[in-house]
Amino acid sequence: MTRRLRLGVCGLSRAFTLMLPTLAWHPRVELVACADPRPEARTRFQQDFPGSHAHADMAGLCADDRVEAIYVATPHQFHAADVIAASRAGKHSLVEKPMAITLADCAAMIEAADRAGVQLLIGHSHAQDGPVRLARRLIASGAHGRARMMTALAYTDFLYRPRRPEELDTARGGGVVFSQGAHQLDILRLLGGGLVRSIRAQCFGWDSARPTEGAYNAFLHFEDGATATLTYSGHGRYDSDELMGWIGELGQRRDPEAYGAARRALATVTDEEAAKARRAYGPETPPLAPPAPPAFHNQFGLVLVSCEGADLRLTPAGVMVHADDRRWLEPAPLPVVPRGEVLDEFCAAVLDGAAPTHSGAWGMATLEACLAVIESARTGREVTLRHQVPVID
Amino acid sequence: MTRRLRLGVCGLSRAFTLMLPTLAWHPRVELVACADPRPEARTRFQQDFPGSHAHADMAGLCADDRVEAIYVATPHQFHAADVIAASRAGKHSLVEKPMAITLADCAAMIEAADRAGVQLLIGHSHAQDGPVRLARRLIASGAHGRARMMTALAYTDFLYRPRRPEELDTARGGGVVFSQGAHQLDILRLLGGGLVRSIRAQCFGWDSARPTEGAYNAFLHFEDGATATLTYSGHGRYDSDELMGWIGELGQRRDPEAYGAARRALATVTDEEAAKARRAYGPETPPLAPPAPPAFHNQFGLVLVSCEGADLRLTPAGVMVHADDRRWLEPAPLPVVPRGEVLDEFCAAVLDGAAPTHSGAWGMATLEACLAVIESARTGREVTLRHQVPVID
Repeated sequence: MTRRLRLGVCGLSRAFTLMLPTLAWHPRVELVACADPRPEARTRFQQDFPGSHAHADMAGLCADDRVEAIYVATPHQFHAADVIAASRAGKHSLVEKPMAITLADCAAMIEAADRAGVQLLIGHSHAQDGPVRLARRLIASGAHGRARMMTALAYTDFLYRPRRPEELDTARGGGVVFSQGAHQLDILRLLGGGLVRSIRAQCFGWDSARPTEGAYNAFLHFEDGATATLTYSGHGRYDSDELMGWIGELGQRRDPEAYGAARRALATVTDEEAAKARRAYGPETPPLAPPAPPAFHNQFGLVLVSCEGADLRLTPAGVMVHADDRRWLEPAPLPVVPRGEVLDEFCAAVLDGAAPTHSGAWGMATLEACLAVIESARTGREVTLRHQVPVID
Repeated sequence: MTRRLRLGVCGLSRAFTLMLPTLAWHPRVELVACADPRPEARTRFQQDFPGSHAHADMAGLCADDRVEAIYVATPHQFHAADVIAASRAGKHSLVEKPMAITLADCAAMIEAADRAGVQLLIGHSHAQDGPVRLARRLIASGAHGRARMMTALAYTDFLYRPRRPEELDTARGGGVVFSQGAHQLDILRLLGGGLVRSIRAQCFGWDSARPTEGAYNAFLHFEDGATATLTYSGHGRYDSDELMGWIGELGQRRDPEAYGAARRALATVTDEEAAKARRAYGPETPPLAPPAPPAFHNQFGLVLVSCEGADLRLTPAGVMVHADDRRWLEPAPLPVVPRGEVLDEFCAAVLDGAAPTHSGAWGMATLEACLAVIESARTGREVTLRHQVPVID
């Protein structure tokens, strides 16, 4: 094991709280600084990470010599400027998905990182979950033939969690395609080898109070003839955790009887933006404590891959291989800390020089797929993709 | 209750044995005659139905004055000639799916029935299953808003049941699109209102010993903007009955541990055509006995319909309605005899004059959808449909 990566965090809101246990206990990372405009968040950060530096903005973080890499967890529309600033300061970037909301921004981010000779990695994506990576390894090994036909289905309450106005505005990166398609399309691109030729899709939103994409249906055609159908709804009704043994997205056990919790909670909220802000990092965040070792992997709904020689079904424990004569579970090793895989990949890139799978070019290709879903829904036509890249295994 | 319909059967093979309990015990049907080239099947028929007439061919059945309607259960490629012959003889037709394998044949069948003033109905289709019809009634009622986004997924061992050579030859109506798409597309056309605008699809077969479509992925766009994604595989590996509480297609309890049974059984077969013939009606058919009242409905895999106001999931018991604040099961009344719904619909059409849902025009529209799946897979392009008709509820 080499030295620990000295990481700064830009943006102490919801994405950061979800990654906090990972950042705090990953064995290869040391959280040394943060940037956030909210003083209460900075204060809390310095309590949780004694000796760390706290900056009011990205400029301060970029000028901080202790920081060698930055986890960019700001709202989508700031990703490009933040990554470009980090790169120009000579710092590596790990940026939350979606990488950005335009291809031009992605290209500028990639160029800035390339010019500076720093790493740019996109995550957390559920394509980094252990069972997805295991399925990719099984496919890449050729043991079961080529991946040919894939299906993914996820029904969540995404649209009914407290949201900032921009999260409900597609033009500003809101809606389920940018936020959740970035996971589901990323997973299928990874399993299918990366090179999507075209996408035909439809988007839906049937709640005028939340006027962005709440659901989508999509058909992906890969260069090698493989195809995938995707279904996602964030409308908080049917819950696809039912198909995953009531293990939730974060690998937690779900109560099958707790129906409609997100909608019920939101109905009691009078100031949604304030409610969202309360979920951000700050004085009300529970005390930092070592996370329990995960019992299950994160999961993102039903994922089935039919290869020429076997069907693979992803589970919260690994990959069920359905071959001709028998089926068996290929267990995926659990991460030491939840979602540790994203920092494994980032540290391997920065500290060990390993080419990352979730590179800037990869993230741009996944964003292109998200944009194609929205474009196909708008035009009613199939959209041809032009920025796809193969998986780097 | 009116009088019983005097029904003749043309073709005593596998489709007939699956429908036999329904035909024998449906309260509105009397089986009075059959036609089949196999003497042993005719002999068995007259043992099971004393006083019935047995004919060696369709001409004999058509000339039989006792017969007022004919159940056409011959191989696909004979459906058109058989229905046209029945119609010209003034007899109503219930024809197995797919209705035919060309649109021209469908049109000729419809014209022959119209000209003779007789009914033409397509079935059994799983779109006639109680939970599907209940879901359609819920949608048509408007109680949950319009159906917008649908998903269907079925993984079976269809391709590894004993087959005649033509069943493995797409040009002669073989493969899963003609035989199983005829169910799945029929279900989604019914739930979506019938009017499919276009289809984008891919087909697969990864067993060169069974050189026809073994699987497909499809995206359906309806005239009203609703869409559906479909996935089907008949490769005998993953089994989607896992998603249906291990209730099988016929509503029977499945053993979750009985993995790979179809492939294993087929591997022991040296003469597949003979094995298929043994599954046809004849001396080896178990004694006719009243069927146990069904405990569950037939089912055809995962079917999810997102309406504007609720998500509907079909189950072998009915329809689970997932609304904003709660979910509940709308139970579908079980048929008196298994698959009784198809004869309910046929008898209602012939004896009561009720316009059937599964009319000739409907069946032609479902065949058009099947052909579009194959065509889109061949060309890699979206196919526009021109023969769609709305649901007659």
